[in-house]
Amino acid sequence: MTRCLITQLEVQSFIERCMTAVGTKPHHARSLAEVLVEGDNRGHYSHGLNRMDMYVKDIKSGICAKDGEPVVVKESVATALVDGKNLLGPVVGNYCMNLAIQKAKEAGIGWVVARGSNHYGIAGYYAMQALKENMIGMSFTNTSPLVVPTRGKECTLGTNPIAVAAPANDGDSFVLDMATSAVALGKVELHERRGDTIPEGWGCDAQGKITSNPKEVLSGGGLVPIGGSEATGGYKGYGLGMMVETFCGILAGAQYSKHIRTWKVTDKVANLGQCFVAINPDNFAPGFCDRMSDLMAIQREMEPADAHTPVLAAGDPERMNMKKCQELGGIPYHVNVVNYMNECAKSVGASPLLPCDKLLPN
Amino acid sequence: MTRCLITQLEVQSFIERCMTAVGTKPHHARSLAEVLVEGDNRGHYSHGLNRMDMYVKDIKSGICAKDGEPVVVKESVATALVDGKNLLGPVVGNYCMNLAIQKAKEAGIGWVVARGSNHYGIAGYYAMQALKENMIGMSFTNTSPLVVPTRGKECTLGTNPIAVAAPANDGDSFVLDMATSAVALGKVELHERRGDTIPEGWGCDAQGKITSNPKEVLSGGGLVPIGGSEATGGYKGYGLGMMVETFCGILAGAQYSKHIRTWKVTDKVANLGQCFVAINPDNFAPGFCDRMSDLMAIQREMEPADAHTPVLAAGDPERMNMKKCQELGGIPYHVNVVNYMNECAKSVGASPLLPCDKLLPN
Repeated sequence: MTRCLITQLEVQSFIERCMTAVGTKPHHARSLAEVLVEGDNRGHYSHGLNRMDMYVKDIKSGICAKDGEPVVVKESVATALVDGKNLLGPVVGNYCMNLAIQKAKEAGIGWVVARGSNHYGIAGYYAMQALKENMIGMSFTNTSPLVVPTRGKECTLGTNPIAVAAPANDGDSFVLDMATSAVALGKVELHERRGDTIPEGWGCDAQGKITSNPKEVLSGGGLVPIGGSEATGGYKGYGLGMMVETFCGILAGAQYSKHIRTWKVTDKVANLGQCFVAINPDNFAPGFCDRMSDLMAIQREMEPADAHTPVLAAGDPERMNMKKCQELGGIPYHVNVVNYMNECAKSVGASPLLPCDKLLPN
Repeated sequence: MTRCLITQLEVQSFIERCMTAVGTKPHHARSLAEVLVEGDNRGHYSHGLNRMDMYVKDIKSGICAKDGEPVVVKESVATALVDGKNLLGPVVGNYCMNLAIQKAKEAGIGWVVARGSNHYGIAGYYAMQALKENMIGMSFTNTSPLVVPTRGKECTLGTNPIAVAAPANDGDSFVLDMATSAVALGKVELHERRGDTIPEGWGCDAQGKITSNPKEVLSGGGLVPIGGSEATGGYKGYGLGMMVETFCGILAGAQYSKHIRTWKVTDKVANLGQCFVAINPDNFAPGFCDRMSDLMAIQREMEPADAHTPVLAAGDPERMNMKKCQELGGIPYHVNVVNYMNECAKSVGASPLLPCDKLLPN
């Protein structure tokens, strides 16, 4: 695998160029680029540059709107319903998260729900915006159906992620950003490409039976909720996926469940539902960050089962990845991804292309 | 297993008698009895009459307070911090949930956090109070450490439940009430008593290794988070347990994590942290209940993997249990439990005792 190093700034401006080349407003392109770069920087390549072509295509085809801004449809001191006007997900996400934070400053909490949205990258990005204000942030989105409910054999729920960020002392934080499926589809695809089996509890076949054959998951089967089979508690992950759908599509009056368009098929508007929450710890007991730091220290400092793999807090793997990128002076990308995105840039007349001269040793 | 049938009313008044016999205020005793009877009625015997002796003991010993009422320490239009004054959990829970609902009527959402609380029975009970007002309800509590974080070997988190209730049409509802551990401790104890093994992914031994031997889980090991091992996504359940702790002990300034007293050891005040949320769908898109009904119908009406086990929505197993109780005309209890609780009643001078004349066929 040949990888090359590209600085965050270069990736950022490249994505902006490609998006504005197809008519995206500059500040919308910036919002998208920021979320995607942050995805890569945190090590979630499946939600970064790797997906840029999808957003370019959505704007180019007109299935996603270029013009307008999100608008508040209904509002109270602590809540809002926002119409995302079919704009890029990060445009809707930033608008809603800022609104939630504003409301939390005044009322202690802001709970903002959006309809008419699109894919918004990593859910954690929006939750983490609250950290800048020393607040707890949450973000949820529904997604195209890929998950089979416990006992079922049809994909009727998305990977519906839950993201929760909470501030601790000295810039430390707890950042949970998880799909409510046992794993992401990309992980199953990767195992299939390598010819590996998958652990029991990742996915099921077309008959709803848990399988260790990734091919069966990808052809007619589906992902299973966190917890895997019914015996090991999969119905809990299924319930959490339903909870996320309740906060998103159901509260927002957006598409939901199997009514959402098929993954990667962009024949109709997505109309995703999303939910953004900010909670101000100042409205509760003093000393929040001290306790949060202690809570994480209790876990991190415990003697691990295996001396080589310390106990982590949510967000630590991403922190380690960001540190690595900082030390390298950029984000390592697979050369194939860079070439692919450069072809995409050429096809829309964007230049300059991504540089691919700083090759990394394998 | 010999079981006898007792009406909800008889159990309710029996628990009230036992609690007032040790000095509990009548309306506090009523609150407790209601939650416990609801636990049994819903089939969660581990959180019902079966635990009455624990509450009797807590009041009798004085480790849990008899006098006073919960008080609001800090408040905004949408939030409150409540001091539970070390009263019985259900007294604190009802107070906070009512407050959250009131705030949601005014501000669209109420987010209320309590410190100084005690065990409050099934978390779902409080979330479900919101259904009466056609609102979404949530409830979370921290609990004594029983769960080992992913990669660790020490119990530093409770089973920290998440409860979410959402109204649908015609009295139907979605009621998720789940521990963030793969299973409850009681399930492991039951398997141990029967001499059965447990599925991989329920618990670990004292070295933090996943085990199928329930004895190892109960002697120095612990429960593992939903998802089981790291490979099958246990770190997600671990993250959810931390999220619940953040909403409870950390926001409330109550005890948290391994600082909470050991399960069943009542040498010191519990000072649990709890969180109660009400969300008013009227503040968001019209038609919430229609969509909620459709979302559940999509799941329930799908062809199941096994024709004999239909796909359920969260809350359906409990609904089926309540229906069974209704048909029977009461709740079936194991005779040993009834005898044990009657001994408890005698020891505190409460009478009459529970009747055990309506025996059920095995």
